[in-house]
Parts: sequence; C-alpha cells; structure tokens
Amino acid sequence: MTDIITVRGYVATEVRLTLAQSGLPITGFRICSTERRFDRETGAWVDGHTNWYYVSMFRQLATNAGASIKKGDRVIVSGRLKVRPWINADGRTGMSVEIDADTAGHDLMWGTANFRRTSADR
Amino acid sequence: MTDIITVRGYVATEVRLTLAQSGLPITGFRICSTERRFDRETGAWVDGHTNWYYVSMFRQLATNAGASIKKGDRVIVSGRLKVRPWINADGRTGMSVEIDADTAGHDLMWGTANFRRTSADR
Amino acid sequence: MTDIITVRGYVATEVRLTLAQSGLPITGFRICSTERRFDRETGAWVDGHTNWYYVSMFRQLATNAGASIKKGDRVIVSGRLKVRPWINADGRTGMSVEIDADTAGHDLMWGTANFRRTSADR
Amino acid sequence: MTDIITVRGYVATEVRLTLAQSGLPITGFRICSTERRFDRETGAWVDGHTNWYYVSMFRQLATNAGASIKKGDRVIVSGRLKVRPWINADGRTGMSVEIDADTAGHDLMWGTANFRRTSADR
Repeated sequence: MTDIITVRGYVATEVRLTLAQSGLPITGFRICSTERRFDRETGAWVDGHTNWYYVSMFRQLATNAGASIKKGDRVIVSGRLKVRPWINADGRTGMSVEIDADTAGHDLMWGTANFRRTSADR
Repeated sequence: MTDIITVRGYVATEVRLTLAQSGLPITGFRICSTERRFDRETGAWVDGHTNWYYVSMFRQLATNAGASIKKGDRVIVSGRLKVRPWINADGRTGMSVEIDADTAGHDLMWGTANFRRTSADR
Repeated sequence: MTDIITVRGYVATEVRLTLAQSGLPITGFRICSTERRFDRETGAWVDGHTNWYYVSMFRQLATNAGASIKKGDRVIVSGRLKVRPWINADGRTGMSVEIDADTAGHDLMWGTANFRRTSADR
Repeated sequence: MTDIITVRGYVATEVRLTLAQSGLPITGFRICSTERRFDRETGAWVDGHTNWYYVSMFRQLATNAGASIKKGDRVIVSGRLKVRPWINADGRTGMSVEIDADTAGHDLMWGTANFRRTSADR
C-alpha cells in the first residue's frame, strides 16, 4: 500500500471539529515533526529538518479526536499522504501536504492518557 | 529505515510495567491485529487474517504506557519488528514476533482520551 | 493501512515460480534483513538483529519476479505481514512470518539493473 | 522511525547523475504516484489522487540508480519525506516535497530486471 506514512508530531494549531452539510464529522489541525539524528562529531542527538502537515479526519475518528486532541499535544498519526497544489481567488498558488488519517492517538512517549472506549468490538 | 511497522491492534493481555535490575522501566503486552478487507461478492467489509505481536517498551514510553494502556484497549504501535527463534529448557522451540516500540498511543477510532503531558518540549 | 512493512533483504534461497492448479502464478523465497546501527562507543556501524521472512507473490508480480530475482540478490519488498502458526502431520508446530508482497524490486544500493517493461501504463 | 514513506511511482523526468564539488554522487528525478481504489458503485478499480515527489539519492545509490533508472520506468522508493518551503530570487515562493531515498528499485509488478551486484556482502 503506497504513500502511507506514520508521523509523530506536535499539534501546532487548535483542533476544530466541524460538521459538513451532509452531517459528516470532520476534524483538522496542523502538526510538525522534527527529525532527531545522532551527530557523530559531538556524540549528541540534535534536531534535524522539520516537516509540517495538515491532518484531516472524518467520521468516528474525527469525533473522538475532536474531543481528545488539543493544541500542544504530542500525537501519532498514520494515513495516506496527499500533496495538493492549490490556487486561490487572487491567483496565488501553493501546495498543501496533508495526511488523510486512518488513525491517530496521543504519543505516550510524552505523557499519559486515560482512554474511554466509545465503540464496542466488532 | 527497514523492518519498521505500524500496527493497530487490540490489547489482549494485562500490561505489566517492571523494572530491570539496572532500574530500566520495561513494559510488555500482546496485541492482535485483524485485517479488514472489502469482499466484492457480498459488497461488505469482512475480517481477514489476524496477526499476533508481543510489544516491548523501554524507558519513558514504558512508564507512561504502563500507566495508560489496559487490557481491552485499542492501540497504535509503531516500531521495529523483531522475529526471534527461541528454545526453552526442555528443548521446545518456537518463534516470537515482537515490536520494539518507538511509540504507541490509544487508537482514537475506538474511543476518547485525556492526555496529560509528563515531558516538556525539548 | 496496518501491518504493512517494507523490508530490504538478502535473497537466501532459490526463487521458485510455480503455477497453481487454477493457473495462478506464485513465486516464493526467503529473505533475511539485518539491522544496521551506530555503536556510539566504537563510533562505527555494526550489525544488529537479523529477521527472516518468507516472501509470497502472485500474478504478474510473481511472473516478473520469478524471471528477475535470484538467490544472492539484494531486494526491497513491500507488503502485508502475515504471521501464521502451523502444525504438521507429525504434530510439530511452528510459526511462519510471511510478507504477502504488493511489490518488490532489486535494491539499487547494491547493484545496477536493466529494466524491461512488460505492462503498458494504464 | 517517523516520516518514512515507501512510494511506488512512475519516473516522470530524465534521471540525472551529477557530482558535487566534493565528489559526492547525487541523483535526482521526479516521480508521480496515483492511488488506486475500489469503487463500490461500479465494482471496478479506479484512479484516485496523484502525488508528485522529487527523489534525491546520494553516494552508491545515486551511482547505481543513475546507471539503471530511466524516464518512464516504474520504481519503488523508500526514504525520509522532506517538505521544504522555498523562495527564489524574484520573490516567488513554493513548496517542494522530497524523498531522501534510503533505497530504490524497479517495480517488478511492471516489468523484469537483470540485476548485477556492484557491492559485495559486508
């Protein structure tokens, strides 16, 4: 399965849960992920390149993440990468780098979490 | 980076946090992950093959996961796969399939979580 | 998409292309993948743990890989991990760790390759 | 290990091997990867979103890939994703989405390959 990525990142924006006109729950926020690499010369781990992503969630994941994830949290996100060129009304162009999340959770390297199941096992 | 895997699974055993003699925190538990695939004939999603893994965690991740993850939870785990043959005292042999976890979190597809940071940002 | 893994490995067995009774082409072989990690004490890269996998391929990939991959080659394989317990006629049990390959190719870190397209673009 | 991605794609540009002033071999080219998804309404697989990436290679991988990969080939690439904003001399800005390749090979789903080892096993 191609273009699937797992990212550990810092939630850099407010997390907004909205409902599409169809009633579909949608949650979106931005995360950044900074590479850590071992510097052989100094013998220490140092920060490398930082990637920024927009994370999109739908349905049950959107609802639960909207109630759970907050700006400043550390998260794991796994899903399909989507690179999209865009153009706005005044002609400016750009590129958005999104992860269409299959799943997400808090990164327990950075804290503890109380989990409450909202869906029963299939 | 090779042999890295991200798995979404069900925590099938108690989660045990222990301290090695050196003082190193270690947490371990078993998860299972069941493939979901679309059956074109029936037009429905059905369960496929189930994989079982032993998840190993160390240091800060072990401490936080030991305080957060419980039997029956749904989790995401990402780390290096280690397939190990074993032999025990009475000569029986087998194979263990472990994930040496880089990170883990609750799977927000299945519930909500309250996260409390224990480590400040670097 | 869960349980997907990409592995770089050494082809340790002959590569056998067979046809199932249905006519389905099937190719299988074993690979091993050895972790490389930086030893901070010696300042050198050293070999770590070795994983062994059985790689299964079907259809077009099986046909092309059967004509291309040989024992001793270095390859990249990407696909779904399947951990299967087995029992044979005399009661012995064991575990097989398979990759049901979505794709594979020669690892160009280790050599050069002449590629000949057999399928046109869709 | 975070931000690692495996992509199967079509080589859309010429593949250029150059030498940096330091003598470091560098190869770069662009690939596109189109999602294939099953359309339940029509019962057929259809093309979804297309991602474009710039692939960067260095050292031995650059040398071998430069001698092996050609425009129009189908390849697998695995490595670290790097999203970089850029600004050029006349003030225009943009974003590049790169894969800093750990490895790459021809995608044997689409053709056959003759492989010739250039490096011995360690």
